[in-house]
Amino acid sequence: MTATLYGVGVGPGDPELMTVKSWRLVSMATCIAYLRANGKDSAALEIARPFLPDAYDPIAIDMPMRVEREPAQAAYDQGAKRIAVALSEGHDVVFLCEGDPFFYGSFMYVFERLAEDHKIVVVPGVTSITAAAAELATPLVERDEVLKVLPATLDVAALHHELATASSTAIIKVGRHFGKVKAVLADLKLLDHATAIEHATRPNQIIRPLTKIEGDTLPYFTTIIVRRK
Amino acid sequence: MTATLYGVGVGPGDPELMTVKSWRLVSMATCIAYLRANGKDSAALEIARPFLPDAYDPIAIDMPMRVEREPAQAAYDQGAKRIAVALSEGHDVVFLCEGDPFFYGSFMYVFERLAEDHKIVVVPGVTSITAAAAELATPLVERDEVLKVLPATLDVAALHHELATASSTAIIKVGRHFGKVKAVLADLKLLDHATAIEHATRPNQIIRPLTKIEGDTLPYFTTIIVRRK
Repeated sequence: MTATLYGVGVGPGDPELMTVKSWRLVSMATCIAYLRANGKDSAALEIARPFLPDAYDPIAIDMPMRVEREPAQAAYDQGAKRIAVALSEGHDVVFLCEGDPFFYGSFMYVFERLAEDHKIVVVPGVTSITAAAAELATPLVERDEVLKVLPATLDVAALHHELATASSTAIIKVGRHFGKVKAVLADLKLLDHATAIEHATRPNQIIRPLTKIEGDTLPYFTTIIVRRK
Repeated sequence: MTATLYGVGVGPGDPELMTVKSWRLVSMATCIAYLRANGKDSAALEIARPFLPDAYDPIAIDMPMRVEREPAQAAYDQGAKRIAVALSEGHDVVFLCEGDPFFYGSFMYVFERLAEDHKIVVVPGVTSITAAAAELATPLVERDEVLKVLPATLDVAALHHELATASSTAIIKVGRHFGKVKAVLADLKLLDHATAIEHATRPNQIIRPLTKIEGDTLPYFTTIIVRRK
């Protein structure tokens, strides 16, 4: 068993923010795997598109994005099996991951199914949180500050607890949790210190201070940066 | 004033983990700036070396790495002045930053001196914390977990407070603070969950569980990953 599964971070959105290593692996790949949610295109595949080889065997893993976990687990089971078949036939597989594979990445669900029996190499990528800071032209975290990364899916008490003492915070996976996050930030008088960036480094990027945003929903690919100073 | 200062993250150490964008900017640069500590070579320059152009004007900023802040501030003042002169003469300047410029980066000291009067573009890079997770072959943070990044320079009480409730933590800037960090982790019974990675992705990378490390000092470029589960 000498074939290798590469979990490759393709960065936050701008194809030029792919690493030289991910570019090399993608451009020379013969088999490329990726997730597709609810029948839509794969965001990771779109990022890598300028560097895709002319021909490759795709392994598209269709994910049912529902609240229940069982359908997703079944999809990962099937996807992992298809990757295992390719590896056992001697084909290296490049698995495309938005951002970084091990930073809140779906790749871990594939990784945990295949790590025991297969050789896996993980290629780190630029995450949305430092990409957001670069686009905002504001340091994300400096000197002796603590940086916290909070999924917006946390409940109100947990968000409140973590934000109450944080000097620098990145809130990710915002989506339909935006109303909850906004209420917690307002309660802590942090709204004036918060900026939302949707689709960082992509052509449809939008940057707005939180005080300027109506409504309770933002895209899933939104990062909110909160800087206390 | 049309010249641009580029703050370019060159990633954690492996030159292939530079982004395509940083590679493009570095390879086409006519003026390249970087920090040098205590007369040593610049780590960022070493990372970028395979992509350096044949000829360029260097702006080497010599940093006195001492506990007192005044000498460092004076060095940043002088370095920023030299960069400003190049920009005002119409030359773009590429400033090389280890990791990501806005993630605990020294670039911010240059940025804050020049941002008002000059055009600055920040190019994010792969950070040491996701590079460490990739090398450890362990997800850094997943699902609804909170990720904390803690500088080892924090005092015992702050380290204890943050680590007591953390599910996933990256401790950075370890260096001579290793003894203190180890004592706090032992106190919280977290030593068995902690792994140190020195010089992640560089040829001299070393990975060790904390229980196997004697002594109170590790290199500055050490990341300790603590996973509670």
